[in-house]
Amino acid sequence: MTIKAVVFDAYGTLYDIQSVAEITEQAFPRYGEIITQIWRIKQLEYSWLRSLMQRYQDFSAVTRDSLVYTLRVLGLRHDEAAFARIMDKYLHLDLYPDASAALSAMKDKKLAILSNGSPDMLNALVANSGLDTMLDATISVDAKKIFKPSPHAYALIELTLGVTPREVLFVSSNPWDACGAKAFGLNVAWIERVTPETLALACVDNKALAPLTMFKALRTQMDELGVAPDHRIHSLSELPRVVAFHES
Amino acid sequence: MTIKAVVFDAYGTLYDIQSVAEITEQAFPRYGEIITQIWRIKQLEYSWLRSLMQRYQDFSAVTRDSLVYTLRVLGLRHDEAAFARIMDKYLHLDLYPDASAALSAMKDKKLAILSNGSPDMLNALVANSGLDTMLDATISVDAKKIFKPSPHAYALIELTLGVTPREVLFVSSNPWDACGAKAFGLNVAWIERVTPETLALACVDNKALAPLTMFKALRTQMDELGVAPDHRIHSLSELPRVVAFHES
Repeated sequence: MTIKAVVFDAYGTLYDIQSVAEITEQAFPRYGEIITQIWRIKQLEYSWLRSLMQRYQDFSAVTRDSLVYTLRVLGLRHDEAAFARIMDKYLHLDLYPDASAALSAMKDKKLAILSNGSPDMLNALVANSGLDTMLDATISVDAKKIFKPSPHAYALIELTLGVTPREVLFVSSNPWDACGAKAFGLNVAWIERVTPETLALACVDNKALAPLTMFKALRTQMDELGVAPDHRIHSLSELPRVVAFHES
Repeated sequence: MTIKAVVFDAYGTLYDIQSVAEITEQAFPRYGEIITQIWRIKQLEYSWLRSLMQRYQDFSAVTRDSLVYTLRVLGLRHDEAAFARIMDKYLHLDLYPDASAALSAMKDKKLAILSNGSPDMLNALVANSGLDTMLDATISVDAKKIFKPSPHAYALIELTLGVTPREVLFVSSNPWDACGAKAFGLNVAWIERVTPETLALACVDNKALAPLTMFKALRTQMDELGVAPDHRIHSLSELPRVVAFHES
């Protein structure tokens, strides 16, 4: 079936969330990357836990709470200004280098973002990165007050763009998101950003296995959730080929 | 209000899940503890993700899937027998040393377990550890086909024991579980098994921060979920005092 819309996850898929590490490193020398990793783990956990607890707060609040947790656990004292500078970076994340070209190459399709981000976060991010002129819609799960991978979140694509799940190619680098989208019934391309070979290399000697490598592994390797994405790719530039595959 | 029932989380609260490390170390020398840590992180993630995806599978399946993931990510080949030996340990976990005495001291109350574990896992575990003679009920979330911290899971306490949330003291070492129970309306005692001081010590020099210390920190420090447990204790032996507090 022809793909009518290509819908992207935002954080980690179009936007490099590791790009906050530079700001956190400035604020907390030597802790930049560990902050980024723990922050991300807890940001995701809190989105899932709040959804399950039926205590939804938007992603802006979840992002703030998980940063508070991270700095507390690492024993890092901070002032309001440093905290605000780090939070602000979430509105100015770097696009992955191949993002704009990939979107341009598929401009005959409807193009959209479906993200856990709150509307204010997403609108600022999309405008700051110049994607606002390329996207037909920026969809926040906030309309349903529940986070991905709830099916209620993915249902927003059809409600917003008027396309059925089978007409959508959903793109995410987050394994749990790719699985959630597939379970819902979308066509899914998963972007594998760390290869098993890289990881295996880091694991050769257990003693040498860096903590950050392990944290990253837990976010980048395909999960065991009983579903598998349709396509495994390594960069956004492969997407036009995936779309063409569905039309052949 | 008087406490009529004391209800315990099982894994990490009455039973020491770190006790699988010995078996995993035998099967995979030098990897015992890292397996245990990643396995636990993924076991929890999968329980939350499957609940949100509305793709419930019981905890036995989730536990198996998360072990498969762990061995794959660490690049560890294994035979069926080794896998089965590790899984079997989940039915023979060690009780925390102070568990039996604490239960005995409160035998004038209804005593129960409310766990994510599947009925077959829990019944075997409780029988193998001799707690079956001390507990009035072993409640599995499986009856609701959704995992903690969903309110549907905590609602099983009243359905099973006939006590209202305000008559229950719920006990868990898992921060997310303590928060979920509190959000539901139970009285909650959180067991803090790693103190912030221990953690801060491990963090003094970022370079020296062991990966396992970090993984443990993410499981043992109170979360930022907008609710706080009523009591913070450090061992099960403090529970009779907590119960007495509610009656004073």
